Amino acid sequence: MEQLKQRIRDEGVYLGGGIIKVDGFLNHQIDPQLIMAVGQAFQDAFAGSGATKILTAESSGIAPAMAAGLQMGLPVIYARKKTPLTMSDTIFKAEAPSRTKGGVVPLMVSPDYLFPEDRVLIIDDFLATGLTLVAMGKIIRQSGASLVGIGCVIEKVFEPGRSRVREFFSGPVVTLAKVDVVDSQILVT
Amino acid sequence: MEQLKQRIRDEGVYLGGGIIKVDGFLNHQIDPQLIMAVGQAFQDAFAGSGATKILTAESSGIAPAMAAGLQMGLPVIYARKKTPLTMSDTIFKAEAPSRTKGGVVPLMVSPDYLFPEDRVLIIDDFLATGLTLVAMGKIIRQSGASLVGIGCVIEKVFEPGRSRVREFFSGPVVTLAKVDVVDSQILVT
Repeated sequence: MEQLKQRIRDEGVYLGGGIIKVDGFLNHQIDPQLIMAVGQAFQDAFAGSGATKILTAESSGIAPAMAAGLQMGLPVIYARKKTPLTMSDTIFKAEAPSRTKGGVVPLMVSPDYLFPEDRVLIIDDFLATGLTLVAMGKIIRQSGASLVGIGCVIEKVFEPGRSRVREFFSGPVVTLAKVDVVDSQILVT
Repeated sequence: MEQLKQRIRDEGVYLGGGIIKVDGFLNHQIDPQLIMAVGQAFQDAFAGSGATKILTAESSGIAPAMAAGLQMGLPVIYARKKTPLTMSDTIFKAEAPSRTKGGVVPLMVSPDYLFPEDRVLIIDDFLATGLTLVAMGKIIRQSGASLVGIGCVIEKVFEPGRSRVREFFSGPVVTLAKVDVVDSQILVT
């Protein structure tokens, strides 16, 4: 997806420690035109998946997941990291170790919205450590639904995300831009 | 907005303590068709506002704000509640007391994305206590930008949000459905 790649080249900032800042269009400020093009790219990639629902994790996953949901006409569930008062006691839950915040972050989904007959497409902003994706995979397994695809906007090829995802999912894993860091410079392919 | 009102009547659940659950289409699962109609309603309401940016707060505000941003062609900034590693030291920050979680929740926006010449439209899911909106108003003031409108999907008329907002903003405050609770029943107008 050339438009996205050029945007990362133009505005992405390498902060060291494997952290790439793309706050200007994805993680803090959202560019509506770019995010809909992201949604379109996911629709193109997963048109034949038979997905019935999209699952993501709050907060940074919501925008790309919603864009995909709008383009594909699918409901979007965002896993919560804190239990809202509106969530019932019985929930699907998995924990993802957080590198940036320390400790573990729980991900929670209400059983009101995920069913055994669902075919679920996971959409997230980054494929990096893969740990959040593993947790979402566990939640889908708890619900009895099927995972049919994983789409992430940006893949950090220097992190173990893709191999970690391959341990539990053999289907399509699609990323729209791949970034590497060489001599503190961001390389986008 | 009749489609939204009917959806609240059909699916909204009163949990007591002033809490109304609309997790099936707004706060946990997002209905893409409904949320784009919400965005269209905000566009209709604020077409003449001259807004240059939309500001919301993670996580529940992101979907309606993004829908409005898509319809109006405006960038959407979501205020963060935890400092991400990508955020610089100098930030616009205000605190909102949290009734449901206790204590205070900080809201933070990077000065990279909000400028004195910006005309800002605040979009959020609920107009209830109004405290999150007050915090977003403070952030806009810190940035030197102008607040030109406030739009919320659902207004709880039994809470002091509207009068609290009126203390700092005399412009348009638009809500798409008003809910009251009488004898533990949700009334939608």
